[in-house]
Amino acid sequence: MDIQIIGYVAAVLTTSSFLPQVIKVWKSKSSKGISVTMYIVMLTGVILWGIYGYCIGSKSVLMANLVAGILQAIILIIIFKNKRKNPR
Amino acid sequence: MDIQIIGYVAAVLTTSSFLPQVIKVWKSKSSKGISVTMYIVMLTGVILWGIYGYCIGSKSVLMANLVAGILQAIILIIIFKNKRKNPR
Repeated sequence: MDIQIIGYVAAVLTTSSFLPQVIKVWKSKSSKGISVTMYIVMLTGVILWGIYGYCIGSKSVLMANLVAGILQAIILIIIFKNKRKNPR
Repeated sequence: MDIQIIGYVAAVLTTSSFLPQVIKVWKSKSSKGISVTMYIVMLTGVILWGIYGYCIGSKSVLMANLVAGILQAIILIIIFKNKRKNPR
């Protein structure tokens, strides 16, 4: 079996995993319980992973981190928007 | 610069990013706002990433996903423990 297939399946899973969280934060308009620090550190790491994937020529690592980064950025934007509306 | 260094920095960031969430769920004893689906799908993906990293000989991909997988499993265990104590 082509190893890249495992990479692509892994990429689809870890990337799409952020979607339920995007929907949950979007619908509930609440980020209670979610660690903002986690998403900031993770987004930084994901950007570096994207660069790493590009450098080692792994398309699955590059693409997975590109899409994951976009979804994490969306989660962070919604969290900060809600915090401004409902400051604690 | 060695490309592997970028991989290792990325690995440390995305892996350690789960720690604040582990601490937050642990302290608050609440998983409100957190998508359980996200962590289940992500853990499955992370296991596949680990296999992929092993197959392409990328130690940083393998190690990052191994540690991230352990932290995500801890988050899931705490969430399910709390759900059993405080069923909604």
